[in-house]
Amino acid sequence: MFKTLEWIAGDGDSGYLRLLDQTRLPNEIVYSDCRSVADLYAAILELKVRGAPAIGASAAYGLLLSEHWKNDGLPLTDGDRWALTEDLRYLRSSRPTAVNLGWALDRVERVITDCDSWSTLRKAALREAELIRTEDMEMCDAIGRHGAPLLEKCDGVLTHCNTGRLATAGVGTALAVIAAAAGKNNLLRVYADETRPLLQGARLTMWELEQLNISATLICDSMAAQVMRERRVQAVVVGADRIASNGDVANKIGTYAVAIAAKYHGIPFYVAAPSSTFDLTLEHGDAIPIEQRQSDEIRKISSVLLAPAGCDVYNPAFDVTPAELVSAIITERGVIHSPTRDQIAEILHGGLARISPD
Amino acid sequence: MFKTLEWIAGDGDSGYLRLLDQTRLPNEIVYSDCRSVADLYAAILELKVRGAPAIGASAAYGLLLSEHWKNDGLPLTDGDRWALTEDLRYLRSSRPTAVNLGWALDRVERVITDCDSWSTLRKAALREAELIRTEDMEMCDAIGRHGAPLLEKCDGVLTHCNTGRLATAGVGTALAVIAAAAGKNNLLRVYADETRPLLQGARLTMWELEQLNISATLICDSMAAQVMRERRVQAVVVGADRIASNGDVANKIGTYAVAIAAKYHGIPFYVAAPSSTFDLTLEHGDAIPIEQRQSDEIRKISSVLLAPAGCDVYNPAFDVTPAELVSAIITERGVIHSPTRDQIAEILHGGLARISPD
Repeated sequence: MFKTLEWIAGDGDSGYLRLLDQTRLPNEIVYSDCRSVADLYAAILELKVRGAPAIGASAAYGLLLSEHWKNDGLPLTDGDRWALTEDLRYLRSSRPTAVNLGWALDRVERVITDCDSWSTLRKAALREAELIRTEDMEMCDAIGRHGAPLLEKCDGVLTHCNTGRLATAGVGTALAVIAAAAGKNNLLRVYADETRPLLQGARLTMWELEQLNISATLICDSMAAQVMRERRVQAVVVGADRIASNGDVANKIGTYAVAIAAKYHGIPFYVAAPSSTFDLTLEHGDAIPIEQRQSDEIRKISSVLLAPAGCDVYNPAFDVTPAELVSAIITERGVIHSPTRDQIAEILHGGLARISPD
Repeated sequence: MFKTLEWIAGDGDSGYLRLLDQTRLPNEIVYSDCRSVADLYAAILELKVRGAPAIGASAAYGLLLSEHWKNDGLPLTDGDRWALTEDLRYLRSSRPTAVNLGWALDRVERVITDCDSWSTLRKAALREAELIRTEDMEMCDAIGRHGAPLLEKCDGVLTHCNTGRLATAGVGTALAVIAAAAGKNNLLRVYADETRPLLQGARLTMWELEQLNISATLICDSMAAQVMRERRVQAVVVGADRIASNGDVANKIGTYAVAIAAKYHGIPFYVAAPSSTFDLTLEHGDAIPIEQRQSDEIRKISSVLLAPAGCDVYNPAFDVTPAELVSAIITERGVIHSPTRDQIAEILHGGLARISPD
């Protein structure tokens, strides 16, 4: 199976981050090597790596790519720490909506604070990045396990965007749930929204499902409601980029429309995401920053012009689905049905320090 | 201003139908000449001409392109009538959903029945086709007039697919309403859904609105709900391909999802269509045949592959919006608010024979 992200160790302390270039799929399987913070920043910005958990896990390796590393045997100075932290701040600015990016960089930043020498920092930074990656793998497995029973009686399930191996360090979030359910019911059919403008559903999800031998049918985003009306699907499962403390969910643009259509048809709408996706500092979803992207993402495909050159375009990359439309949130810790502020706090309570709002 | 369809008369009885080739817009303005029934069939199938009223108006000229015309001075035989009618039947099979196609061909078929000689038939057939075209122009103007007041207080209006000059023989249906409203309020902004898979919104509506100097913003279909949530639009206006006697509306795929989202946001959802769009033989929308189109319309754009080659695709060209989601239907005879079977029968009652179910 392909690897979405992988640290390739070199001699001594050297090494680089190898990413499967997702902008080239499904036509070409090409890897892109990040050897500097600027490389990694560009890879995230250009969506060579995308999907909230995969962005977080990749960014965690960013510190190891800094130009500011020294090998002088001297202790770390405040100036050194400041320079390294600046690199993390730069990476943090690559994409604003996914919370896992900031969450992973916070963990790495704490490592900088805790270490006194360059050599301990190097080891600790690599250990932390590897830990984030392996934790993500375990979270994916647990999400799949918790979510699969929800799809037990489904013949068809709808998903939006890509939430599989390409979106995480593990087997995925929503797609992990679907794959686990398909493991028990090989008649399960996935309807994949193509996910305009960047077609993550058509390019990535359809390709992944083909690799996994899971039956899948591609539709345009505008067909999801009709597919529900025809009773081809009995559930929707999507991922999330950030979840506010009241259960409002930011996810790929188009998710909100799917959630409204699911409500209208009485079909459950599930969100699958690791607990690191919750941002308890936000009261509700309106406070989540929404990334606006280039007009040409909509006006063009490859070099083909699809609309009058220079026409006005509105291109928000995400939308926010209010908690009232969410039937359940599937996390690695269990399923939160009809999520409310209290239920979310409860399932996250006493858990990993990284998800508390302090 | 461009002409969507035009009969070009030649010497004597000769002539051909010139269509603006809509598959090449907005990149090229190319005309396509139909000199046979087969040419016209292909032009309709390949969407060189599309939009329910424009398909009907174009098909009306089809009889004049038949190979079965004779100039022998003899009376029409039953065999002649049968051969000509076969050509109309063939044209009728080009696209199944739009009712105006069958409606226009019914009118032309009646002309065949009514005429005794080749020369009277030729004149009568041309007259009927021209009448259908000019009636459509008048209907478009009346629809614009009746609908414009509904948008009086809007800053923004959302539309789906293309319903303007390119979709009719006149100024359009939904786009006629929008243009009439914009004539009174030049701050009105149109949000145009790109309308996957064939991008009639991006390619055609954005181009037409540019020609008309009306402010317009292109969005992906999946963004319509978000645009409503952000209160950028206060109304939706779309066209229709067929309306059942209870007010259920078949229109371009994606319309149904927009209607559901409009309902959720409390935004009025208007359908603009000539009375020839009603099919009173159908009790409700479930009886409307839905055209299924080629998989490659979704898998490819131009020669660019957007998904794994050969992957399974579901590609319905239309969907049905139930009457309960329709705030009003705007016809050339007036506006039917909260349409019901009785109100529809009433506004169509005693009207043109062509819309009665006999």
